[in-house]
Parts: sequence; C-alpha cells; structure tokens
Amino acid sequence: MSPAPLERIPPCSGRAIELETGDELVVIDPQGQQVSDLTAFSRDDLAEYLSSGRSIDYAARLWLSTGDTLYSNRSRPMFTILEDTCGRHDFTLTPCSKEMFEKLYDEAEGRPGCEGNLASALAPWGIGRDRIPVAFNIFMNVTFDAASGAVAVLPPLSKAGDHIRLRAEMPLVVAMTACSAGQSNNFSYKPIDYRIDRARAE
Amino acid sequence: MSPAPLERIPPCSGRAIELETGDELVVIDPQGQQVSDLTAFSRDDLAEYLSSGRSIDYAARLWLSTGDTLYSNRSRPMFTILEDTCGRHDFTLTPCSKEMFEKLYDEAEGRPGCEGNLASALAPWGIGRDRIPVAFNIFMNVTFDAASGAVAVLPPLSKAGDHIRLRAEMPLVVAMTACSAGQSNNFSYKPIDYRIDRARAE
Repeated sequence: MSPAPLERIPPCSGRAIELETGDELVVIDPQGQQVSDLTAFSRDDLAEYLSSGRSIDYAARLWLSTGDTLYSNRSRPMFTILEDTCGRHDFTLTPCSKEMFEKLYDEAEGRPGCEGNLASALAPWGIGRDRIPVAFNIFMNVTFDAASGAVAVLPPLSKAGDHIRLRAEMPLVVAMTACSAGQSNNFSYKPIDYRIDRARAE
Repeated sequence: MSPAPLERIPPCSGRAIELETGDELVVIDPQGQQVSDLTAFSRDDLAEYLSSGRSIDYAARLWLSTGDTLYSNRSRPMFTILEDTCGRHDFTLTPCSKEMFEKLYDEAEGRPGCEGNLASALAPWGIGRDRIPVAFNIFMNVTFDAASGAVAVLPPLSKAGDHIRLRAEMPLVVAMTACSAGQSNNFSYKPIDYRIDRARAE
C-alpha cells in the first residue's frame, strides 16, 4: 500500500470518490461524535447499489462491524469491514434531508442535508436524490426498544480519532458526508476525515 | 365505498394493482402465519417509491401500525394504516430472492422469491429487480436484541383472517406477494388475499 494523504469533508457537506477492488477506505471521526452517511454504487453498473436490507439479512444483525460484509441489492459483496474502533453504526435510516429537517426539526431554511449533499457529490455520475437509499450511517448511534420498536437517535459513541476501514470488493463510486443533522451528531456539526489506501500505486 | 370482491394471491407469487387517492387496500392473511411483501411507486412518477428509512425515521418506531403513515423517498405520504388486527410487520429487510435462498437456505433451485415475483408483477410498468427496495413486509415477525442488534425472523403473529387496511394517499402502483421464504411463514407457503375498497365507484 502506498501512503495516502488525509482528506477532510467540511461540516455539512459531502464528497464522492472512486475505488478499485482491493482499495481500502478509512473513514475517521477527527473530533468525536460526528456521523458520516455513506452510500455506494457499482462503477460497472450504477443500478447496483449498497443495500441495507440485504446486508442486515445476511449478517442477521442490525449493527455491522469488523468482519462483516456490506452487500449490494444484487447480493454481491461491496465492502468488507476490516477494522472498526467505534463499533456502532446505523443502517436503518435514510440520510437527513430538507424535508426531514422540516418534519422533525421544524427548520425551514432548506438546508440540503446529507441526502442533498450525497446527490450533489454524485451528480457527475448522473445519480440524483431519488436514488439515494438507506445509507450506512457511520458512527450514528441509533437504539431500538426490543418491546415497542421505539427508535432513539443518541449522540455517537465515537471519540476523536475513531475510524472504520472498508475494503472495496468491486469497483465502486462511493459518496459520504459530514452529517448535517443536529440530533445525529449531538448538535456539533463537525468535519469528517478520510483516507484511501490504494491497493496499487497510482 | 362500493363492495369489492376478494382476490387471492397464490402461494409463492406476486400481484400488482393501481390505486387512486383515497382507495383502501385490505391485505388479509386467510389461513394465518403468512407474510406479504408490499412495495409501492407513485403512479405520476415511478422514481418515487415507498421508503423504509423515511417511514421509520418519521414514526420514530421500527414497527408501524394503526394511525402510522408510510412515506415515499420524497417524504410524501403514500399510505395511512387505517386498521391493523395483527400489529407486527417488518420494514427492515429486503424481499427474499434467488440469491438469498442460496445464501441463507442453501437452495439452488433458483426460485424467484418475493423480489422476483414483485419485479414480474411490476414489469408492465417497466420496474425491474434493481428497483425493488426494502419492502413493507406485512405480518413478518422480525425481532431485534436491543443489546447486540441480533435479528431473528420468527413465525408471523397473524392468525387466520388478520388484516391490515391501507389508504392510498396518492395515485399508486402497488405490488405485493404471498411470501416464498420458509422462515418468514413458518414453512407453510400459504396464499394471501386482498380487497380494494374504491373511494369512487368504477
């Protein structure tokens, strides 16, 4: 692996990147208690996307961590989680959006949210808002009451420097954010860092 | 409302229908312990679809029942649950599929599963397998361990005659199945019945 520079996603924004098979994407919470919504598409056929429902079904667990595989809607591995120093991420909720801010936060400013930021980042690949699925919400701490099914969004468990390392299992277009939703990041709106350790020198 | 005939979805198959705003779709488990995976698309723009992530986020509950709204990916109401005699449905897992049967059941026969049956039913609208999202899995009994996140698929709680009544909040294309996955229906592979109570006489 060649050493890779650290990239920063500024607060309330998104970024898209391309990965080759075997490349490793490290997503880092530099200051602690911040969330990064991540979604991915097969670069060879953008109709194939990261599927929460398939991944949860095959793991038989809501929360995925080291050793788990993230699957596409076609049941093919997209990522393997190689390392995870936080241990809690959500895979049930859609990215925050303008409409979500209106409904849940009574906000009328029209901030794009992670959904809009993911779509802007993916625009060069022709992927719009309608095609942003339930994301892998890295560091997002969502709990469930086993009896009532009640959902609670709590401050992330991530501390400064916590990270997750994902190996690409196919050529991918990946989009990720520094989350815009107050409740998800304990109203701190921090940046997210990432690094790509390439399988082959560029 | 005009009286409506009861329609039967044979075991391991699917059906698609169109609803106008205000029409009520009643999905019935005629024999008990059977699941129906349901998905929906806006008839005015088929890129708008039923979203598990939006619906769970807005309800702040994994399990939806009487009085809850099912939302689209654009955060618009698609259905209101008017009546629910069972009380437990899943909204986290993707429909069973050929690949799922291979991975979880070691089945190689290539049965299409609910995913394939939904796609076949939706073919006249040009909607293929890649566009079948996490479905609203009516009567499916999925439990979660609140500490580990472990997912268990248990026999449905539905008894013969249990039903759910959904009011369409926009013109819809709806697809639903009689589920093909043994674990979801306690290896009984039964039919599903439905009835459409039209808001206006046809």
